[in-house]
Amino acid sequence: MGSFRGHALPGTFFFITGLWWSTKSILKYLCKKQKRTCYVGSKVLFHRIEILEGIVLFGMALTGMAGEQFIPGGPHLTLYDYKLGQWNQLLRWQHFTMYFFFALLGVAEILSFTISSLPVSLPKLMLANALFVEAFIFYNHTHGREMLDIFVHQLLVLVIFLTGLVAFLEFLTWNNVLLELLRSSLILLQGIWFWQIGFVLYPPSGGPAWDLMDHDNILFLAMCFCWHYALTFVIIGANYGFVTWLVKFRFKRFCPSEVGLLKNAEREQESEEEM
Amino acid sequence: MGSFRGHALPGTFFFITGLWWSTKSILKYLCKKQKRTCYVGSKVLFHRIEILEGIVLFGMALTGMAGEQFIPGGPHLTLYDYKLGQWNQLLRWQHFTMYFFFALLGVAEILSFTISSLPVSLPKLMLANALFVEAFIFYNHTHGREMLDIFVHQLLVLVIFLTGLVAFLEFLTWNNVLLELLRSSLILLQGIWFWQIGFVLYPPSGGPAWDLMDHDNILFLAMCFCWHYALTFVIIGANYGFVTWLVKFRFKRFCPSEVGLLKNAEREQESEEEM
Amino acid sequence: MGSFRGHALPGTFFFITGLWWSTKSILKYLCKKQKRTCYVGSKVLFHRIEILEGIVLFGMALTGMAGEQFIPGGPHLTLYDYKLGQWNQLLRWQHFTMYFFFALLGVAEILSFTISSLPVSLPKLMLANALFVEAFIFYNHTHGREMLDIFVHQLLVLVIFLTGLVAFLEFLTWNNVLLELLRSSLILLQGIWFWQIGFVLYPPSGGPAWDLMDHDNILFLAMCFCWHYALTFVIIGANYGFVTWLVKFRFKRFCPSEVGLLKNAEREQESEEEM
Amino acid sequence: MGSFRGHALPGTFFFITGLWWSTKSILKYLCKKQKRTCYVGSKVLFHRIEILEGIVLFGMALTGMAGEQFIPGGPHLTLYDYKLGQWNQLLRWQHFTMYFFFALLGVAEILSFTISSLPVSLPKLMLANALFVEAFIFYNHTHGREMLDIFVHQLLVLVIFLTGLVAFLEFLTWNNVLLELLRSSLILLQGIWFWQIGFVLYPPSGGPAWDLMDHDNILFLAMCFCWHYALTFVIIGANYGFVTWLVKFRFKRFCPSEVGLLKNAEREQESEEEM
Repeated sequence: MGSFRGHALPGTFFFITGLWWSTKSILKYLCKKQKRTCYVGSKVLFHRIEILEGIVLFGMALTGMAGEQFIPGGPHLTLYDYKLGQWNQLLRWQHFTMYFFFALLGVAEILSFTISSLPVSLPKLMLANALFVEAFIFYNHTHGREMLDIFVHQLLVLVIFLTGLVAFLEFLTWNNVLLELLRSSLILLQGIWFWQIGFVLYPPSGGPAWDLMDHDNILFLAMCFCWHYALTFVIIGANYGFVTWLVKFRFKRFCPSEVGLLKNAEREQESEEEM
Repeated sequence: MGSFRGHALPGTFFFITGLWWSTKSILKYLCKKQKRTCYVGSKVLFHRIEILEGIVLFGMALTGMAGEQFIPGGPHLTLYDYKLGQWNQLLRWQHFTMYFFFALLGVAEILSFTISSLPVSLPKLMLANALFVEAFIFYNHTHGREMLDIFVHQLLVLVIFLTGLVAFLEFLTWNNVLLELLRSSLILLQGIWFWQIGFVLYPPSGGPAWDLMDHDNILFLAMCFCWHYALTFVIIGANYGFVTWLVKFRFKRFCPSEVGLLKNAEREQESEEEM
Repeated sequence: MGSFRGHALPGTFFFITGLWWSTKSILKYLCKKQKRTCYVGSKVLFHRIEILEGIVLFGMALTGMAGEQFIPGGPHLTLYDYKLGQWNQLLRWQHFTMYFFFALLGVAEILSFTISSLPVSLPKLMLANALFVEAFIFYNHTHGREMLDIFVHQLLVLVIFLTGLVAFLEFLTWNNVLLELLRSSLILLQGIWFWQIGFVLYPPSGGPAWDLMDHDNILFLAMCFCWHYALTFVIIGANYGFVTWLVKFRFKRFCPSEVGLLKNAEREQESEEEM
Repeated sequence: MGSFRGHALPGTFFFITGLWWSTKSILKYLCKKQKRTCYVGSKVLFHRIEILEGIVLFGMALTGMAGEQFIPGGPHLTLYDYKLGQWNQLLRWQHFTMYFFFALLGVAEILSFTISSLPVSLPKLMLANALFVEAFIFYNHTHGREMLDIFVHQLLVLVIFLTGLVAFLEFLTWNNVLLELLRSSLILLQGIWFWQIGFVLYPPSGGPAWDLMDHDNILFLAMCFCWHYALTFVIIGANYGFVTWLVKFRFKRFCPSEVGLLKNAEREQESEEEM
C-alpha cells in the first residue's frame, strides 16, 4: 500500500460508498414523508436494495482480501516466515483483516434481510464493529514513522472512530435521517482523506514529498481536514437537492394531484410535535 | 489576533450570542407552558426569528471571513507563499475556517426553516459540528507557546468541546430547556474566557504581562474559570427572572383571567408525571 | 486542609449526604410502588423534604465558605498579596470555590421546588455541575506533590467525575432508582475515600506517614478503593432492607389488608413489561 | 497466576460464561417472538434459570476467593507481612477482589429474582460494576513489566472496559437482544484472550517465550486480537443457528400448526414499524 495508488483505491471506494449511502438515506427519508399519499411498494424495493448492497460489499471485500494476499510479492497466506524467523508482511495482513470485517458486514446485511428471525439492526452493529476494528488497526499501524506521517494517520483514525461512534448511535436510536447523513459525510471525508494522504506522502506528480518534519505542514493539514469536512456537507447538500428534485418529478407522474397539499399538512403537524 | 482587541471581539460576539440564545430558550419554554390558555401565534413568530438569526449569523460570519482575509497585512486569499516557500499566515486561515463553519450553520438555519422537506433539527447538528471544528482547530493552535498560554487555550478547547457535546445531545434529545440553557451558559463562558485570555496575555492597561511560567497563575486561572462559570449561571438566572416577569406582564394584558389557575393545574399534572 | 481533620470533615459530610440520599431514593421508590393502594400525601411531603434539604445544604456550604475564609490564618477575602507579589492561599480559595457551587445547588433546590415555572430537574443539573467543578479543581490541585499523594487524589478525581456523570445521566433519564442509588454509593465512596486519604497522608495515630514513593502502596490503595466501593454496596443494601421493613411496618398500620396482594399483582405486570 | 494454567482457567470460565449468556439471550429473544402463538410458561422458567445462574456464579466466585487465599503459598488472609514490613502477595489479593465483585453479582442476581420489591435491572448494574472494577484492577496491575506483557494486558483492560460499557448501556436501554449478544461476544473475546496471553507469556510447549521487546509482535497481536473478535461472531452466529433450529423443532411438537404463518405476519408488522 505504500504508494499513491494504494491510497487512492480505498479512497475512491469509501467516497463512492459515502455517496451511495447518502443517496439511500435521503431516498428513504423522502419516501417515508410521502408514504401516506402514494405508497408504491417502496419497502420491498429497499429490502432488495439492501441485499444487493450486501452482496456487492461482500464481493468487493473478498476481492480486496484476495488481492492483498495474492498480488506479486504478497504473503500468499503465509503468516510466519520460519526461514527469517519473523512475521511475514504484517501490513498486508492488517489490510486483509480490515477487509475481512467489511466482508462480515456484507454477510450480516444479506442474512438480516433474508432470514426473518434476525433483528434488522444487525448490519448497523456490524458496521460500527468494522469501523472500530479499522480504527484500532490503523492506530497500531504507524509505529516508528515520521511526525507528519503519524499525524495524517491519526486524523484518519479520528475520522474512522467517529464514524464508528455515529454508526453505534444509529444502532441505538433507530431511524434518524440526520445521523445517517452524518455517517455518510464522515465516510466521504474518510475517502477524501485517503486521497489527501496519498498526495502528501507519495506525490503523484513525481515531485519531492512534503517536508515530514515541518510543523507548519501539520497546522495546514489540520485545517485542510476541516475544509474537506465542509466539502462533504456541500456534496451531501447538492445530493439532497438532486434527489428531492428527482423524487418530486417521479411522484408527479404517478400521483399528481394532492401530494403538495398533504405534504404541507403533514409538515405542519410534525413541526407542531417538534416545537 | 495576537492582541487584546483580537480576543475581546470574539468574546463580545459569543457573550451576546449566549445571552440571546438563553433569552430565546426561556421565551420558548414559557410560551409552551402557557400555550393552552392563550396561544398568540408564537410558532410562526419563532420560525421567523430563527430565519432572522440565521441571516444575522451568516452575515457576521461572512464579515469575519472577509475581515481575516483583507485587513492590511492579511493573506488576501493567498494560501502558499511561493517566494518564501512556506505557508502564508496559517493562523488567519484557521480563523477563516472557523468562521466558515459558523456561516454553514447560518445557511443551515435559513434553509431548514424555509424549505419544508428539511428536518428541523439540522441547525443543532451544524452547531455541534461548528463547535467541534472550532475545538479541533484551537487544539492544533498552540504549538510551541509558553505554559500559561497553552493552559488558557486548553481551557478554551475544553469549554468549546463541552458546548459541542451539549449541542449534540440536544440534537439527539429534542426539546430539553435545561440543556439549551446549559449550552447558552457554556457559550457565555466561552465569551467571558476570551476576554480573560486577552487580559492575561495582552494586558490592556499596558502593564507587564503575567508571568507565563508561574504555576500559581495556572492554579488561579483554573479557579477563575470556575468563577466565570458560576457567573454565567447568575446571568442566566437573572435573565430567566426578567423574561418571566416580561411574559407575565404581557400576557396579563391579553388574557388576564385564568392564566394563573390553569398554570397551576398544569404544573400539578406535570409534576405528577415526573414524580 | 493539610491535616487529618481537614480530610475527615468533608469525608463525614459526604458520607452522611450519601446515606441520606440513598434513604430518600429508596423511600420514594417504595412509596411509588405502593401508590395505588394507599397514597398518604407523600408527594407534598417529598417536596417539603427537598426544600428543607436545599436549605440545609445552602447553610452548610455557606458555613464552609465562611470557615475557609475567616479561620485564623485564612485569606480573609484577600485574593492577591501585593506585598509578597503572589496569590494569597490559593488552596483555601479553591475549597471556597467548591463550597460555592454546592451553595448554588442548594439555591437551585429551594427555587425549583418553590417557584412553579422552573423545571424540576434543575437540581440534578446543578449537582452534576457542582461535581464536575469539584473534579476539575481537584485535578488542578496536586501539582508538585509525591507519587502516592498524587495517586490518591487522582482516585478522588475519578470518583467525583464518575458521580458527576451519573448525576448528568439522571438529569437526562428521569426516575431510575438504581441510577440514584449508584450516585449515592459513589457519594458514600467519596466520603470514605476522604477518610482514607487522611489516614494515608496524616496518620492520626501520630506514627510515621506511609512511604509515598513505594509502588506497592499504590497497588494496595487501588485495591482498597475497590473494597470501599464494595462496602458502599453493603451499606446501601442494609439501608434498603431497613427502609423496606420500616415502610412495611408503617403501612400495615394505615392500610393493613390488601397491600401484599396488590403489590404482587403489580410486580407481575411490571415484570411482564420488562421481560 | 504467573503460569499458563493461571491464565487458561479464567479464560475457560469466561468462554463458558459467554457461550451460556449468548444462548440465554437468543432463547429469550426467540421465545418472545413466538410468545403470542404458544406461550409455555417460559417466564417462570427464565426466572428460575436466572436464580440458578446466580447461585452457580456465587459458588464459583466463592471457590475462586478461597482458592486464591488458601492454595499452598497463598496469603492465608494475611494482608500485611509485619516481619518483612511489606504487603503480602498483593497480586493474589487483587484476584481475590475481582472474584468478590463477581460474588456480589451472583448475590444481586439471586436477590433481585426472589425478592419482589427489588428492581430487576439490578444484576445488569452489578455486572457493569464488576467489569469496571476488574478493568480498574488490571489497569493497576502491570507496573514495571516488559513492553509486550504490558500491551497484552492493556488489550485485556480494553475488552473488559468495553464489556462494562455495553453492560451499562444494557442497564439503561432495556431489552435489546443485539446489545446482549455484543456483551456475550466481548465476554467470549475476554476468555479467548486470556488463553492467548497464556500462550504468549508462558508457552505450554515448554519452548522459549516470545520476544517481549520486538515491536512486530505487538503488530501481530493487535491483529490477532481482531481475529479472535471475528471468531466470537462466528461462534455466536453458529450458536444462533443451532438454538433457532432447536426451538423450531421443539415448538413444532407442541403447537405444530400456525407458527410459521403467524411469525411471518408478526415480522411483517415489526419491520413496518422499524422501516
